[in-house]
Amino acid sequence: MVDFYTSEKHGPFTLIDVGDLPLEDGGVLPRCQLAVATYGELNTEKDNAILVPTWYSGTSGIIQQVLIGDGRALDPRRYFIIVVNQIGSGLSTSPHNAANELAGPAFPHVRIGDDVCAQHRLVTETYGINRLALMVGASMGAQQTYEWAVRYPDMIARAGIIAGTARNSELDFQLAQTLIDAITSDPGYLDGAYTSATDVSAGLARHARLWTVLGWSDEFFREGRHKAMGFASMEAFIDGFMVPYFSPMDPNNLLNQIWKWQRGDVSRHTNGDLAAALGRIRAKTFVMPLARDAVFPPADCAAEQAMIPSSELRVLDSIDGHLGLFGTDPAMLAQLDANLIELLARSES
Amino acid sequence: MVDFYTSEKHGPFTLIDVGDLPLEDGGVLPRCQLAVATYGELNTEKDNAILVPTWYSGTSGIIQQVLIGDGRALDPRRYFIIVVNQIGSGLSTSPHNAANELAGPAFPHVRIGDDVCAQHRLVTETYGINRLALMVGASMGAQQTYEWAVRYPDMIARAGIIAGTARNSELDFQLAQTLIDAITSDPGYLDGAYTSATDVSAGLARHARLWTVLGWSDEFFREGRHKAMGFASMEAFIDGFMVPYFSPMDPNNLLNQIWKWQRGDVSRHTNGDLAAALGRIRAKTFVMPLARDAVFPPADCAAEQAMIPSSELRVLDSIDGHLGLFGTDPAMLAQLDANLIELLARSES
Repeated sequence: MVDFYTSEKHGPFTLIDVGDLPLEDGGVLPRCQLAVATYGELNTEKDNAILVPTWYSGTSGIIQQVLIGDGRALDPRRYFIIVVNQIGSGLSTSPHNAANELAGPAFPHVRIGDDVCAQHRLVTETYGINRLALMVGASMGAQQTYEWAVRYPDMIARAGIIAGTARNSELDFQLAQTLIDAITSDPGYLDGAYTSATDVSAGLARHARLWTVLGWSDEFFREGRHKAMGFASMEAFIDGFMVPYFSPMDPNNLLNQIWKWQRGDVSRHTNGDLAAALGRIRAKTFVMPLARDAVFPPADCAAEQAMIPSSELRVLDSIDGHLGLFGTDPAMLAQLDANLIELLARSES
Repeated sequence: MVDFYTSEKHGPFTLIDVGDLPLEDGGVLPRCQLAVATYGELNTEKDNAILVPTWYSGTSGIIQQVLIGDGRALDPRRYFIIVVNQIGSGLSTSPHNAANELAGPAFPHVRIGDDVCAQHRLVTETYGINRLALMVGASMGAQQTYEWAVRYPDMIARAGIIAGTARNSELDFQLAQTLIDAITSDPGYLDGAYTSATDVSAGLARHARLWTVLGWSDEFFREGRHKAMGFASMEAFIDGFMVPYFSPMDPNNLLNQIWKWQRGDVSRHTNGDLAAALGRIRAKTFVMPLARDAVFPPADCAAEQAMIPSSELRVLDSIDGHLGLFGTDPAMLAQLDANLIELLARSES
C-alpha cells in the first residue's frame, strides 16, 4: 500500500504546501499538501494556464496519459498545464498519509469546496495566476471545475465540463453509496482501522465488480470491447483489469473521495438555488457528457447546461460509458480534443 | 420469516406435487411442489390456457395484481390463467421450506430448464393441456417462457416476452453477481446457515439499495416518480419501500433464484448456437423490452427477437426501468395489455 502512491506508479509530481486548510464540515488540514504535476511553461503574461483536477481514484498520471500531449488540445508547447491531485487522492494530503491524529479513519470529511479553496491558493500564491485560460475536469474533476466557476467566476475564462455535474443527483448519491457499502461491509475494514489494503481485498474486489457493472455501458460489453482489450470474458476483464486497478488503493482514501463526490453541490452558495448558482458562471463553458454514461447521465448534464449563460452542450459520442475516461475510445478522445480546441479558440468575454 | 411465504401475504395458491424432479446440475427435488394460482375456467377444448411464471423475488400475488383482471388482456372471464411460482420463490419448493437434508444452504442449484420441466408436468398431467394459447413472462419469467418455447415449440401457440432474454448476457451475469455479493458479504449470512433473515438484514438492505440503483432508471428519479409515490427523498424511498419489500425474504431463496437467473440460456439445447435455438420457436412471439431497462437492456432483447421466426419487437415506452414490472406506470401496462390483446387475436400458425 505504501508503495502504491509514488511517482514510480503515477509519474512525477511535486508536493506543494498550501498552508493550514480549514474545512467546510469542520476541522483543519494542517499544512495541506497538494501533489501537482505541471507541463509546459507559464508565459510572462500568465495567461496561458490550464488547471486540471483529478477524478475518483485517478491521479495526475492518468490525466497526463489521457488528456495531455504535443498536438493535443492540452499542448504543453503552448500552455502551462497544472494537474492537481485532489485531497484524498493518495498523492495529496490523504487519509493514508496524514499525520497521526488525522490518520486513516480519523481523517476529516472533505468537500469539493475545500479542494477548490486549496487549489485557489496554489494558483494565486504559488504561481501568481489571476485568471485561468481554461479549467477542465472530468467526473469529480468536473465537480471541482463547476465549483471554481461558480466561486471565482472572474478567474475562469473557459470551462470544460466532462462527464460530471454541478449538483449531484439523488440517484448518484445512492449509486456512490453502493460503492461505499461494497468496501465497508468487509469485516477486514474494521471501521477504517485495517492494517493494510489487503485486509480489505474482498471489499475492494466487490467495489471493482460494481464499478464494472455501473461504469461501462451494456453496449461496451455487447460489442465485446473488453475482448478487444485482450480479455477472454467479462470475468477475466474483472479479474485482470478492474480488480488489479483498485486493489492497491487505500480504502480510507477511496471512501473519503466518495463522501466528497456524493455531496458535490454548487447551490450551497445560493441557498439551494441551482439556477442562481450556475447563473454566476462567466466562463465560456462546454458541457460534455459521455453518451452512454450511467454514473453522470447526459440528461442530468444537459439540464444543468441549460442554466449556464455562455454554454453549449457537446455530447461525446461513445459506447464506453463513464469509464471511457480511462481513454479506451480514441474516437471519443478525438471529439473531446476538437471541442477543447474550439473552446480555447473562443475569445474571452 | 416463516410467516412471510403465506397466502395471507401472497394471495391464495394451491400446492401441487409434480413428483420427484431430477435436476440438470445434479440431485433431485423429491416430491417437488409447485405453488399455483389459477384464474378463470379451462374450457372443454382445453385451448384457452395461459401460463404465467414468476420473476425474481415475485410471486403469484404480484402477477395477479399487475397483469390479471376483468377487461385486461389476461381476462379470467375468457381464459384459464395458470400462475406458477418458480422453484426457489418461497411458495413452491424452496431452500427455506425444503426437508432437512435439502434445507437452506444444502438446497441444490436449480436451472430455468428444471422449472420448465416441472411446469410441463403441471400443464400436461395436472390439467391435461397439450397446447397453451399463450405463455407470458417477465424478467426471470421471460427466461422461463423462452425455455418453454424452445423446448416444446408445438405446445406454445403464442409467447409474450417481457423484459427478459433467452440467453443471459455476460454483463447481466455480473450485475446479478453484485446482488449476490451484497447478501453473502454479510457476516450474519454464515454461508447460508443463518437462523433468520433478520441475521442478514444488513446484506438484504445493501441488496435493496443496489436494486434501487440498478432497477429503476435515472429518469425515474429525475422526474421525481418516487416522490409521486409518496416518498420525500430517494433515501426515504429506499428505507420505506425497497428495504421493506426485500427484508422479510429468505436469503437462500433469493440466492437460489439469482444463481438460476445468471445461467438462463436456451442455447444449451443447441451446443451454444443461439440462432439455432431461437429458430426452433414456433410460437407467434412479441418481444417487449422496457425502454429504460438496465437489467435486460432493450438492445439485448432486440438482438434475440431478430432470430425468432414469427416475432415482432414491441418496446414498452416507460421511464420506470426494469422495476416498472411492479406496475408503477399505468401507461406502460396499457401498452402491454394492447400488445397482448393483439397477440392473442393472432391466428395460430
